[in-house]
Amino acid sequence: MSTFGEYFKVTTYGESHCRSVGCIVDGCPPGMELTEEDIQPQMTRRRPGQSALTTPRNEADKVEIQSGTEFGITLGTPIAMVVRNQDQRPKDYGNSTMDLYPRPSHADWTYLEKYGVKASSGGGRSSARETIGRVAASAIAEKYLTLAHGIEIVAFVTSVGSVHMFPPTATHPSSSTDPAFLSVLDTVTRAKVDEFVPVRCPDRASADRMAEEIAAFRDRHDSIGGTVTCVIRNVPSGLGEPCFDKMEAMLAHAMLSIPASKGFEIGSGFGGCEVPGSIHNDPFIVAPEVPPMETGASKNGLPRPKLTTKTNNSGGIQGGITNGAHIYFRVGFKPPATIGQAQHTATYDGDVSGVLEAKGRHDPCVVPRAVPIVEAMAALVVIDALMAQQARQMSRSLLPPLKKTIPAAKTVVGGADAIEKQLANSVLNGQK
Amino acid sequence: MSTFGEYFKVTTYGESHCRSVGCIVDGCPPGMELTEEDIQPQMTRRRPGQSALTTPRNEADKVEIQSGTEFGITLGTPIAMVVRNQDQRPKDYGNSTMDLYPRPSHADWTYLEKYGVKASSGGGRSSARETIGRVAASAIAEKYLTLAHGIEIVAFVTSVGSVHMFPPTATHPSSSTDPAFLSVLDTVTRAKVDEFVPVRCPDRASADRMAEEIAAFRDRHDSIGGTVTCVIRNVPSGLGEPCFDKMEAMLAHAMLSIPASKGFEIGSGFGGCEVPGSIHNDPFIVAPEVPPMETGASKNGLPRPKLTTKTNNSGGIQGGITNGAHIYFRVGFKPPATIGQAQHTATYDGDVSGVLEAKGRHDPCVVPRAVPIVEAMAALVVIDALMAQQARQMSRSLLPPLKKTIPAAKTVVGGADAIEKQLANSVLNGQK
Amino acid sequence: MSTFGEYFKVTTYGESHCRSVGCIVDGCPPGMELTEEDIQPQMTRRRPGQSALTTPRNEADKVEIQSGTEFGITLGTPIAMVVRNQDQRPKDYGNSTMDLYPRPSHADWTYLEKYGVKASSGGGRSSARETIGRVAASAIAEKYLTLAHGIEIVAFVTSVGSVHMFPPTATHPSSSTDPAFLSVLDTVTRAKVDEFVPVRCPDRASADRMAEEIAAFRDRHDSIGGTVTCVIRNVPSGLGEPCFDKMEAMLAHAMLSIPASKGFEIGSGFGGCEVPGSIHNDPFIVAPEVPPMETGASKNGLPRPKLTTKTNNSGGIQGGITNGAHIYFRVGFKPPATIGQAQHTATYDGDVSGVLEAKGRHDPCVVPRAVPIVEAMAALVVIDALMAQQARQMSRSLLPPLKKTIPAAKTVVGGADAIEKQLANSVLNGQK
Amino acid sequence: MSTFGEYFKVTTYGESHCRSVGCIVDGCPPGMELTEEDIQPQMTRRRPGQSALTTPRNEADKVEIQSGTEFGITLGTPIAMVVRNQDQRPKDYGNSTMDLYPRPSHADWTYLEKYGVKASSGGGRSSARETIGRVAASAIAEKYLTLAHGIEIVAFVTSVGSVHMFPPTATHPSSSTDPAFLSVLDTVTRAKVDEFVPVRCPDRASADRMAEEIAAFRDRHDSIGGTVTCVIRNVPSGLGEPCFDKMEAMLAHAMLSIPASKGFEIGSGFGGCEVPGSIHNDPFIVAPEVPPMETGASKNGLPRPKLTTKTNNSGGIQGGITNGAHIYFRVGFKPPATIGQAQHTATYDGDVSGVLEAKGRHDPCVVPRAVPIVEAMAALVVIDALMAQQARQMSRSLLPPLKKTIPAAKTVVGGADAIEKQLANSVLNGQK
Repeated sequence: MSTFGEYFKVTTYGESHCRSVGCIVDGCPPGMELTEEDIQPQMTRRRPGQSALTTPRNEADKVEIQSGTEFGITLGTPIAMVVRNQDQRPKDYGNSTMDLYPRPSHADWTYLEKYGVKASSGGGRSSARETIGRVAASAIAEKYLTLAHGIEIVAFVTSVGSVHMFPPTATHPSSSTDPAFLSVLDTVTRAKVDEFVPVRCPDRASADRMAEEIAAFRDRHDSIGGTVTCVIRNVPSGLGEPCFDKMEAMLAHAMLSIPASKGFEIGSGFGGCEVPGSIHNDPFIVAPEVPPMETGASKNGLPRPKLTTKTNNSGGIQGGITNGAHIYFRVGFKPPATIGQAQHTATYDGDVSGVLEAKGRHDPCVVPRAVPIVEAMAALVVIDALMAQQARQMSRSLLPPLKKTIPAAKTVVGGADAIEKQLANSVLNGQK
Repeated sequence: MSTFGEYFKVTTYGESHCRSVGCIVDGCPPGMELTEEDIQPQMTRRRPGQSALTTPRNEADKVEIQSGTEFGITLGTPIAMVVRNQDQRPKDYGNSTMDLYPRPSHADWTYLEKYGVKASSGGGRSSARETIGRVAASAIAEKYLTLAHGIEIVAFVTSVGSVHMFPPTATHPSSSTDPAFLSVLDTVTRAKVDEFVPVRCPDRASADRMAEEIAAFRDRHDSIGGTVTCVIRNVPSGLGEPCFDKMEAMLAHAMLSIPASKGFEIGSGFGGCEVPGSIHNDPFIVAPEVPPMETGASKNGLPRPKLTTKTNNSGGIQGGITNGAHIYFRVGFKPPATIGQAQHTATYDGDVSGVLEAKGRHDPCVVPRAVPIVEAMAALVVIDALMAQQARQMSRSLLPPLKKTIPAAKTVVGGADAIEKQLANSVLNGQK
Repeated sequence: MSTFGEYFKVTTYGESHCRSVGCIVDGCPPGMELTEEDIQPQMTRRRPGQSALTTPRNEADKVEIQSGTEFGITLGTPIAMVVRNQDQRPKDYGNSTMDLYPRPSHADWTYLEKYGVKASSGGGRSSARETIGRVAASAIAEKYLTLAHGIEIVAFVTSVGSVHMFPPTATHPSSSTDPAFLSVLDTVTRAKVDEFVPVRCPDRASADRMAEEIAAFRDRHDSIGGTVTCVIRNVPSGLGEPCFDKMEAMLAHAMLSIPASKGFEIGSGFGGCEVPGSIHNDPFIVAPEVPPMETGASKNGLPRPKLTTKTNNSGGIQGGITNGAHIYFRVGFKPPATIGQAQHTATYDGDVSGVLEAKGRHDPCVVPRAVPIVEAMAALVVIDALMAQQARQMSRSLLPPLKKTIPAAKTVVGGADAIEKQLANSVLNGQK
Repeated sequence: MSTFGEYFKVTTYGESHCRSVGCIVDGCPPGMELTEEDIQPQMTRRRPGQSALTTPRNEADKVEIQSGTEFGITLGTPIAMVVRNQDQRPKDYGNSTMDLYPRPSHADWTYLEKYGVKASSGGGRSSARETIGRVAASAIAEKYLTLAHGIEIVAFVTSVGSVHMFPPTATHPSSSTDPAFLSVLDTVTRAKVDEFVPVRCPDRASADRMAEEIAAFRDRHDSIGGTVTCVIRNVPSGLGEPCFDKMEAMLAHAMLSIPASKGFEIGSGFGGCEVPGSIHNDPFIVAPEVPPMETGASKNGLPRPKLTTKTNNSGGIQGGITNGAHIYFRVGFKPPATIGQAQHTATYDGDVSGVLEAKGRHDPCVVPRAVPIVEAMAALVVIDALMAQQARQMSRSLLPPLKKTIPAAKTVVGGADAIEKQLANSVLNGQK
C-alpha cells in the first residue's frame, strides 16, 4: 500500500488538492538531533528548477514536524511530517475537458478503473506532490546515514533524449568499464550537480547540449525523457537480503516507484550483458588504506571491509549483498505526458472523435527534477537494509564463539572475523 | 527476508547441499484442483536446456506437496512443497582453492561479510537451486491466473551479447514502437519458445546467430550475458498500488531478485527516454470486441476494460496501475561469473598474488535458463496485485451507491461503473 | 511498531506535548461517504466523562481529515487525520519531582530504558492521548462495518473493583451460561450505555454501586480498576485466520494494547475453564429466520449463516474463526498509577530514600473512559479480518466449479452458504 | 496468515493427514550451534503425557532440519523443519457420522464456512498437530535466548476445573500479591514441573487434587479446562513496542492463538482490577547485585537494569515495555470439545434431530499438554521483541553523543544504563 521499508518505515499520504501531504516515519533511531532545518533543503531542491545551495529558500513547501522529537532530539517514536497544500480546493466536475477525456499516458483512467472514483485532479496519488512525503522522510534517513557511516548519495542527469554524458560505444557498451565515468562516481557532489541547475548534469559540455535538447522540445510543444545516474559511497558491506530482497531488487523497486520512471539498471546494467565474463568479473584486491572518517562506525571500531574489487561492474553488489564498493545505478524517465499539442483520444464513455488539448506552459523534461527524488528513494533503501544488517550483527554478537576449529579457519573466517570481534568489543562494551 | 508477496505469500528455503529446497505458499485460494502434475512441468523447464514440451520428464527435481491439499483440491491453508537435493553432503573445508579464494563476482565473499559464516558451497542461497521454490510456487499462481482470467505469461530471449532480436535503431530507439516486436508480443507462446531450445529465442535467424555467439564464447572459455523479454496478456485493469508498490515497481523488484539480473525496463524502457512525448503518449481508443474467454471472470460477468490504448509504450501500466493492455518488460542478465580462465584475485585473508582457475565445463550463457524464472516471478507479482485488487473491489461492492449526483456523472464514473455493477450483481448474487 | 492491521492499516503518531496527534488509515474502501462528522462523535465520547449523545460537542479534540477524500467521498487512498494538541510546549526539565523519580507503575522508566531518551511528559506514547488516532481510524472502520454488514459494537462497564454487574457464582462460574447476561448482549446499545455516564454500566443498581465504589477510592486518594465487556453483533461467519491470527488472538492483541489493560477473555473465558465440556459445548441449531437488514451484504444476496449455536460459550468463535453468533469478550483494567498519596520509591539514579507525591486531582477509575477505546480496537480487528475474508471469497469465486458430481452432497454441503455450494459439493464427493 | 514474528519469522504448515507438518524459521542469527538434538526434547514434551526428562525419547514426532545449517552451525538463512505424519491417508467421506454433523465447539463448521472446502480430519489447521511447527521453531529461539541472555521460560498448570494452586482470596484477589506465588515464580524449573507429569502442577497437594478432578471427569465421559501460568526470567529491559505491539499485547496474541485457549492475563490480571492503586503500584528500588551469568550479554558488558520494582503487580511490563523483572502471565484453556457423551446437534444441512456420539477414549483435560506450547509461544514473542530492541540499540549506538552538557544530569540520567548515559544526559539539558 503506501508504506515503504520494514525497519525505517515510511507511510505517505496526500493528493494534489487535499489539505496537506506528508508522511509518518516509524523506526527512526532515538537520540539523533533533528529539526525542520535538516529536512527543508531537500524539500526545496525537489521543487521545479531549484537548488537549495544557490537559491533563496522557497517557503512554499514548508515542512512541519508534528511528533517524535522533543527539544530537537528524536524520541524513537513515529515522526509525522505535514506540508500544507496551497490549493486545497478540489476542482469542480463537469466544466473542463479533463472531465471528458482521460489524458493519454496519465493515470486518470487507470485510477478510475482501480477505485471506481477518482480525485478531481486526475491521477490522485500519481501526482508529483506525492513525492513530498518521500523526500521529507529520506532527509531524516540521510542524516542518520551520514552520521553513522559517512554514506554519501549523489544523483545526476546522464542523458536527455539522445544526448548522453557517456554514450555507449563499441569499446564500452556499458559505461561501467569507462574510467572517465568511474572517476565521476568517485568525486561528484550535490553541490557540483546543483551548479548545473536547471539541467543537473555535472559536465559543462553535456549540460549545454542537454539544455539545447530541452529547449528544442519545448519550442515544438513536445516533451522528452532522459536518465539519472546515482552513486552511493561508503556503504558498509553485508547489506541486502539474499533471496527476494537483494539490494538491487530493493533499489529497482524504489526507483520504479518514482512517477514516470521506465527502467533501472545496476552497475554495468544492460550494457554489461554485452561484456564478456572475463572482463565483467570483478577480481578481489586488498582494500586501500583510507583515513578513518568521523563517523559513529569508525568511532566504535567498526572496520571497513578488508577486500574490495579491482573493477566494479557489479555496482557494489554481489549475490544481492553489498561488498563495500560504490553502489551505482541508472534510472530512465519517460517524456512527460502533458504536452501542448492536440491529441486524438477517446472520452471516458468511449466517444472516439474527441481531441484533447492542454493549455498553458508545460515542463518539457522532468529528468532534472527527478534527481533529489532518486536520492531520496536510494536513502530509504539503504537505511532499511542497514538497519536489518545491524540487527543481525547485534544479535549474532551475543552468541558464544564457535567451539570447533574449522580446518582452514584462517582462510574461511577471515573477512568477517574482524567485524564481529570489533562489534562485540566496541559497540557493546565500549559505551561505558 | 525470504518471503515474497502479501496476499499470495511465498517463503522459500534451501541451499545447494542441504536436505531439500522448497517453499511454503500461504494464501492460495481454496477449492482449486491442484496436484504435483500442475507443478512439475515448469520445474523441468527450469533445468538446464530443458523443455517440458519436447523432452522426456526429468525426474531429478521432483516436487512433493506436503500440505494444503486433499483429494487434489486446495484447502486454502499453507501449501508446503519439497524438492530433495541429490547431493546433500556439504563439502569439506580446506582442501580446495575455493576455500582460499572468494570467487570474483560470486557471492562467496559478501555472504561471509554478511553472516560471518558461509555455506561450503560458496554463496549459499545465491545458488541457482534457490529458484526451485519460486518456480514451484509460481506454477500454482499461474494455474489460478489462467482459470480466473485467462492470463498468459510468456518470456523469451531477445538478445545474447550483441546479437539482438530487435536491435535499437534511429527510427525505433525502443522496440515498443516497432510493429514487428508488438506482433511477437501478441502471438508468442511457450510452446513456440521451447521449439528453440536451447536458445529460447522464437525467431529462427536470431536464434541461430545467438547459438553461434554462445558457441564462440564457450570456445574461448568465456561467458556472455543477454536479455529476456516477457509479455503478460489478459491482465485485468486496476492492478498495482499507486505509490510505492506500482505494478512496474513490483515487477522490477521481482526481476532484480533473480540471480545474475542487472537491469529491468517496462514498456518503452530506456529507449523510450529518447522518444518524443507526442509519439510516446498512448491515446485511448475503444477496446475491440473479443469473444469472451472461458474464465471465471467472464462467467461471472466481470467485463474486460471498455477502453484500451492505440499504442502501448506504457507497457500496459499507467500511474503504476494496469490498463488491461499487454504488460511487457525486458530483463538483462550478466555473463556467468564462472569461466574456464585463470583469474588473478585476492585470497580471503588478503594475499594478492593468487590465481583462481575453475575446472570442468561451465555454462557460457544462462539467459535461456532464466526464461521460466522470469515467468515465475512475473506470475507471483501478478497474482499478488490481482488479489489485492479483488479484495478492494469486493469490499467496495458492499457499499451503498453514492447518493449525490455528480454533475458530469456519465463522463466521470463511466469506466468503473460497469465493473462495480457487474461485481456486485454477478459475483455476489449470482452464485446461488 | 505503530501500525495495526494488514488490510485496513492504521499508523498512529503523537505524544502529549507535540504539535498534534493522529493517524494515517491506508486501505479504506473507495466510494464511501465520509466527513469529519462521522468521526467526531467517538472522539468526543473518548474524552473524560463524555457522551456524544447527551452532551454538547466538545470541540477540544477536533479531527481534521487531511487527505483521501474529496467531495465527502473516500478515494481509496490513505486518509490522514490530525488532532491538534492544545498544550504543545514540552515541560522544562529539572524543576519538578517528576524529573527525579520514575513514577511507580508508569512508563517513565521503561521508556528511558528502551530509548535512552524520553519525552518530558514521561511515558511519551504511553499517554492516553495516543489513543486519539485509534479512535479516529476506527470511526471510519465502523462506518464501513455498519453499511456493509450492519455490524454493531457495544462496550460497557461490567465491574469496578469488587462490584460486578454479573458476579461469578457456583452455578455460573462464567457469565456465559447466565441468561441475564446473554440478554444484555442481545440488546445493549451505545445510547443505553451513555445514559449511565460517567459509569457506563447499563444497569441502574450496579451503576450506582460502582459510582459509590469510585467515590470511596477518590476520597481515600486511591484508585481502582475494573472490567469492560464488549459485544459484536451481526458478524459474518468465516472471519479470522486459522493459525496464529485467530479472531480471538487478534482481539486479545488489540485489547492488551490499550493502556492499563491487564487481561482479556473471550466467550466463557477464565470462568469457562471450570465448566464441564458437556455444558460448555455449543450444539448447532438451524439459525432462526430474521428480517434482512438494509446492508450491502443483504442487498448483494450474501446470506447470513444457515446454522448457529444453541448456547454461545465459544463467544462466536470456533477454531479461531467466527461462526456468526455474537462475539463477546471482557477486558480488565488496572487501577490508575497516579494517586494522591505519597509513595516511597527510588530516583532514576538509585537514591532509595525518596518520596514521590502527586498533586492535584486524579481520576480514580479510568474504566468508563476505556469503553469507546475497546469499541475502537474491536472495530479495527473486525474490519481487518473481514477484508481478509472478502479477498479470499472473491478470489475463490472466480474458480471453476469442481468437476465431479456428488453422492454425499447433502450431508456435508449443508453448512456452506450459497456461494460455496457447488464447490463444497463436488469436493466431498467425486475425489477418487 | 500462518506467519508469526517480524524479526524471527516463523511460518508453519500442515494438517493432520497430509505428508508432513513443519515450519520455516527465517531470521535466526547466524553462527549458532544447532542440531536436531536441540529441538527434539520439546517436541517430545509436547506429545501426550510426556516428559523429555523422564521418559525415553519418543521418536514418533522426529524433526528433520532441511536447510539453514551446515556442520551443525546456523547459516543465517531460512531453517526449514519437517515432521512426517504417521497417518498420511485422508479419511474417506460419507461413511461416518462426522460427515453428517459439524462437531459442537469444534472447527469443522467454521472452516467450511471460511473456505468452502474442508479437510477430511475436520478442522484442518485447528488440529493440535499444527502446534508441532511452533514448538520446533521455538526450540531454536529458546537456545538463542539462553545463550545470549540466560532467559528462562517455565510454564506450569495452576488450575484444573475449580481446583486452584493459588485460589483467589479476599486478601489476595490476585495471586500477584501472594508471596507464596511469587516464590514459585522465582524458583520453578521445567525439571520440577515434569516431575509432576501428567498433571504438571509443581505442588504435590494441588497436583493430587487436580489428578482426582481429571479422573472424575474422565469417569463421567466429560471434560474439564484449567489454567497455565508462565514465568519468563532474566528478560532484558526495554523490550516491547509502545503502541499496538506492547509486550503484553504480543503475549496475549500468542497465547490466544493456541487451540482451546479462552483467556490471558498479565501480572496481577483480572484480580488486579480489584486491588487498590496504592497497593498495586510497584515502587522502584535499586536492583540487588547478582553474580553475572555466563551469557553473551554479560560477556559483552551489557548491564542488567539498575533499578527494579519492590513488588511486581505489573508482571515485568510497564507501558508495554519490559522493566527487567519477571514477566508472568496466565492462560485459560476450555474443556476439550470431544467428549464421550451423546450430543444433540444439527447436521450440516440443518436437520436438527440428530445425535452425535464420539467413540473411543478421549483426553478429558488438555491443560498439562498445553504447558510446552505456552512456553513455545512465549519464546517466539520474546525473541522477536528482543531482536527489535537489539536493532534499535545497535542503530542508536552509532549516533554521536548529543552536544550539550548537563545541569540536571544526575536526576534524570540515573535510570538509564551505561550505554545510554551520555545521550540521556544531554537531552535533559541543553536543548532549546
